[in-house]
Amino acid sequence: MRLTALSEVLPGAPVTNRDMAQRFGLHEKWLDRMTGNRSRYFCGADGTYRNTGDLATAAAERALAAARLNPSDLDFLVLCTASPDQLMPATVNLVADRLGVNDLPTFQLTSGCAGALTGLYTARGLLAAGHRRGLVIGADSVEKLWPSEQGLKAINPAELANFALFGDGAGAAVVEADDDGPGLVVEHMVLRTVGKDRAPAQIVRWYGADGAPLVPGPDGTEVREAMSHEDYKAIEEHVPGLAASVLAELSAATRWPVAEVEHVLPPQLNGVMTERIRTHLGVRPDQEVSCVADTGNNGNALPFIQLGRALKRIESGIGVGGRLLVTTIESSKWVVSGLALRHRAEEAGRVG
Amino acid sequence: MRLTALSEVLPGAPVTNRDMAQRFGLHEKWLDRMTGNRSRYFCGADGTYRNTGDLATAAAERALAAARLNPSDLDFLVLCTASPDQLMPATVNLVADRLGVNDLPTFQLTSGCAGALTGLYTARGLLAAGHRRGLVIGADSVEKLWPSEQGLKAINPAELANFALFGDGAGAAVVEADDDGPGLVVEHMVLRTVGKDRAPAQIVRWYGADGAPLVPGPDGTEVREAMSHEDYKAIEEHVPGLAASVLAELSAATRWPVAEVEHVLPPQLNGVMTERIRTHLGVRPDQEVSCVADTGNNGNALPFIQLGRALKRIESGIGVGGRLLVTTIESSKWVVSGLALRHRAEEAGRVG
Repeated sequence: MRLTALSEVLPGAPVTNRDMAQRFGLHEKWLDRMTGNRSRYFCGADGTYRNTGDLATAAAERALAAARLNPSDLDFLVLCTASPDQLMPATVNLVADRLGVNDLPTFQLTSGCAGALTGLYTARGLLAAGHRRGLVIGADSVEKLWPSEQGLKAINPAELANFALFGDGAGAAVVEADDDGPGLVVEHMVLRTVGKDRAPAQIVRWYGADGAPLVPGPDGTEVREAMSHEDYKAIEEHVPGLAASVLAELSAATRWPVAEVEHVLPPQLNGVMTERIRTHLGVRPDQEVSCVADTGNNGNALPFIQLGRALKRIESGIGVGGRLLVTTIESSKWVVSGLALRHRAEEAGRVG
Repeated sequence: MRLTALSEVLPGAPVTNRDMAQRFGLHEKWLDRMTGNRSRYFCGADGTYRNTGDLATAAAERALAAARLNPSDLDFLVLCTASPDQLMPATVNLVADRLGVNDLPTFQLTSGCAGALTGLYTARGLLAAGHRRGLVIGADSVEKLWPSEQGLKAINPAELANFALFGDGAGAAVVEADDDGPGLVVEHMVLRTVGKDRAPAQIVRWYGADGAPLVPGPDGTEVREAMSHEDYKAIEEHVPGLAASVLAELSAATRWPVAEVEHVLPPQLNGVMTERIRTHLGVRPDQEVSCVADTGNNGNALPFIQLGRALKRIESGIGVGGRLLVTTIESSKWVVSGLALRHRAEEAGRVG
């Protein structure tokens, strides 16, 4: 499998920690130090992007344009998301209609931080079964997850900080079965659950028409159940070690010593954690391709954005023809994933 | 790809039209005539099954038992559902933990009536890419979709009838790359969107902590937005023709004249529609394998239940070594799918 074009979509203008502090009544400096993120992006700011489907459609269009392809050149469409616009229809089928494609199989995967690689793993299977070319999109939007004005008052600051970690966005990759051409050729993939007997470290709930049930609040009065929950301590404790094990596995499978790899794409939880993981992995700053400090954690979109930025870096002359190692860790119910790629330089890959 | 074992799970006791009429203040005879369904099943009745994850886990366990396999014999796990228990983690990863498996790739597909075949199509790709054996589960539960007591009053009877169409359930299939053994061998698959410029005929929404927004109700007062919407007329108009086209395509690809095929599994919207479709397809009652009139439409589960019942029929001596044609039509945003299988009789397949 070869990735021939990548895209990224970030809605509206960057939302700073100062903006976030004002909205949530938090301290800007605390957010700086806690997340290490400088900004994130949200749908709804300018009306161009309202939801996951809008972001996914734009990412698809940009990736196709970068690959100089028409939607009708695709054999299949995969969308990975944790934030579908509706339960039914699958958002991927609304995206297909908006792209103007028909008569192709579509797949929507429910996934989080390991979603992009789960989508690429699925695509590799579809290509092995005879399809020639497809598009894998990752997109997420957190709008529906925000507490209401009323709900906000009942949430403690540690929980609120979670909201400052996330952002909206989309990315996509055009994938081809034919490895003989320009782009990023997949050399090895890792994808597996490691969640046996481990509690989920990220939970996001959905509700019916009546909304969240009432539960006892911190002061004894009834408040709505928190829609999302993050076990930040479990993430801090486990993610660096899991990332190191995936990186070692990719290195062993490809026989690429990590220190010699031109582009390393570590997990993108937030700026603070990503820097800690980079150090733990022994990856040098000149090898690192990260973006979370500026994009926020936009889940299924993020590895596509990282891959696109790695390709832009290559197009600027850094590590042409070189190797890429990607690790993503999903803490929801603990999925590890990794990807080893080699850049084929005959004709430069393109980024949308 | 070969299906070596199938399973079905229906929670609690059958819920009759009389039970439904009492709960919703409808007429029993009208439900009989409108849906053609005699019963359906719901989680929560006896506490054994609470949700989609519970149903999916039981379906997985039964399929593995029928195949005389342990969970550790699986290379991958696929769950198809329109009703995940949470947005994150994906329900499939909670199921993996409960099965006691780890270190395998998992996939959760967001899908409806074409979900079972979307899952099998995905599995075929994973097997083509080198995996040897996996499990594909379809499961749905409608509990969270029910309107509250208060919401119920604002809904008109036609909308309420939709609730009488659906039910909870799960089914699963063990799939193997090796075609050389007993079971149902896949000869041809069809999966594609036909939704371009066609409005969705089924919508199911999800909400955040505040629940559904208020919209003007029939008497002018504000009521909560309807969580689900079904365009029954569009379904009546398009599904029989789409089913006929898929059946013709399967027949052409396999060169099996439909009249000679031993087991035909038509779309299972409800008893009335399934009977109308069977007639439209020119399928004889002795060829038909249907179950919706007794199980209700349990979405992603249903084709697995149908396939399991077809296999039981074969084990009872009808059409041993024969051919099966399956068609499913998803009206949400219009996906058509089909499956042609041949029974390998050397050693009987097993049903859990």
